[in-house]
Amino acid sequence: MIEEVKSSFAKQGFMKTLGAEIVHLEEGCLKIRCKKQDSLTQQHGYFHAGVLTSLMDSACGYAALTSMSKGSDVLSVEFKTNLMRPAKSEVIIATGTVIKSGKTLVFCEAKITDEKEETIFATLQGTMICLKN
Amino acid sequence: MIEEVKSSFAKQGFMKTLGAEIVHLEEGCLKIRCKKQDSLTQQHGYFHAGVLTSLMDSACGYAALTSMSKGSDVLSVEFKTNLMRPAKSEVIIATGTVIKSGKTLVFCEAKITDEKEETIFATLQGTMICLKN
Amino acid sequence: MIEEVKSSFAKQGFMKTLGAEIVHLEEGCLKIRCKKQDSLTQQHGYFHAGVLTSLMDSACGYAALTSMSKGSDVLSVEFKTNLMRPAKSEVIIATGTVIKSGKTLVFCEAKITDEKEETIFATLQGTMICLKN
Amino acid sequence: MIEEVKSSFAKQGFMKTLGAEIVHLEEGCLKIRCKKQDSLTQQHGYFHAGVLTSLMDSACGYAALTSMSKGSDVLSVEFKTNLMRPAKSEVIIATGTVIKSGKTLVFCEAKITDEKEETIFATLQGTMICLKN
Repeated sequence: MIEEVKSSFAKQGFMKTLGAEIVHLEEGCLKIRCKKQDSLTQQHGYFHAGVLTSLMDSACGYAALTSMSKGSDVLSVEFKTNLMRPAKSEVIIATGTVIKSGKTLVFCEAKITDEKEETIFATLQGTMICLKN
Repeated sequence: MIEEVKSSFAKQGFMKTLGAEIVHLEEGCLKIRCKKQDSLTQQHGYFHAGVLTSLMDSACGYAALTSMSKGSDVLSVEFKTNLMRPAKSEVIIATGTVIKSGKTLVFCEAKITDEKEETIFATLQGTMICLKN
Repeated sequence: MIEEVKSSFAKQGFMKTLGAEIVHLEEGCLKIRCKKQDSLTQQHGYFHAGVLTSLMDSACGYAALTSMSKGSDVLSVEFKTNLMRPAKSEVIIATGTVIKSGKTLVFCEAKITDEKEETIFATLQGTMICLKN
Repeated sequence: MIEEVKSSFAKQGFMKTLGAEIVHLEEGCLKIRCKKQDSLTQQHGYFHAGVLTSLMDSACGYAALTSMSKGSDVLSVEFKTNLMRPAKSEVIIATGTVIKSGKTLVFCEAKITDEKEETIFATLQGTMICLKN
């Protein structure tokens, strides 16, 4: 599913808008990198919580897709974000991980960290659904 | 707090990136309008779930700010998004509403609808925190 | 599905433990009543947040079941509870409502109020899944 | 805070109702054990999702309390439960862990596993608030 993930990710106009790129991809785990720009900030100049969530959502969705059978597509059902501290970092990494992959639903977790993956800024728990084409 | 909301919203570079504008603003309720662009899409060409969440997060945050005392600032603590159907609409409205305003925490709900506010695409429940300057 | 809801509810040993009873049941909406007992409290003598959540979960699950085709069964996928104020009430009502019923997933909302349904103590947003027998 | 945790837990009538007992307690982490009884089941005879959530909520609340200053009390603000598979186990363990402890809010995660802590049945992400007495 590696090629399918890359191809689907490339179709997400919004990931381009965020300047987001996949920097790690294996079955059940995907990492996305994003660099701070003025176009991504909230009122104090840090990454907007919506940017963090968008990156974690895509990271989970595509981590989920790697666990599905060929020809599947993925949609988000729900996710919850907890924001632990302002994301004061020039570069952030969103890591999405599959926790439980069922036939229909895939449960994933994600986190936003600094580039060294030392400080956690936000976490997400979410459910993805498998669509058969 | 109306002026403070407008001024803070204007500082969110990310809202500009989304082409988002406040179209309604009263105490405890705020509506944001967003028009579809290729730069905001997921892989099927609909609004990315992250865009929907970003709009609902800002709508809740600023609805919460209207309920706080002068000089306060607001940050998101957590929020959860449920996605009910693909947001197949040219224009969407994010409505954020204060449900319970405490001294420190403000609990809000939001929804994404089409422009006529007839079809609900997504909902959000979230907690905002009041920061004293 | 009315009979199926009542019969399944009666099988939930835990609802008996909570002294919970269905007081309203129509398609897409169900209300459960629960009376305060020392066996249901947290450390300050109010209803435990887990009791509130359990009632809202069952209210949503069975509201969802009323919207499913005959012979279906229901399981909770996820839910999120926001606690707005301590549930200082002798009797509480959990109201579960179907917001969007799909073929596989049903999205529901619930709230806990006092008996007159005037004060909201907690809310829940959750996803239920339809199991075919 | 160890004594304060034990004393507060003992006041939760609802934990007694669940037959729940603290089996591990250190700063930032607490484990609760619960044995299956007919009084705790949903319609298929497994642990009710509300029981799982109640245990995780208390595990998080008291894990949070261990991270607070002496004389503090704790309340749940919000939590979200994801249910990964039916909790088909005679004994379950709820583990609550502090992820980020702030002055006012403490962010925690919890999981429900079998007694050997090998299989995860459910997870929870939640926010606790510190009350000063």
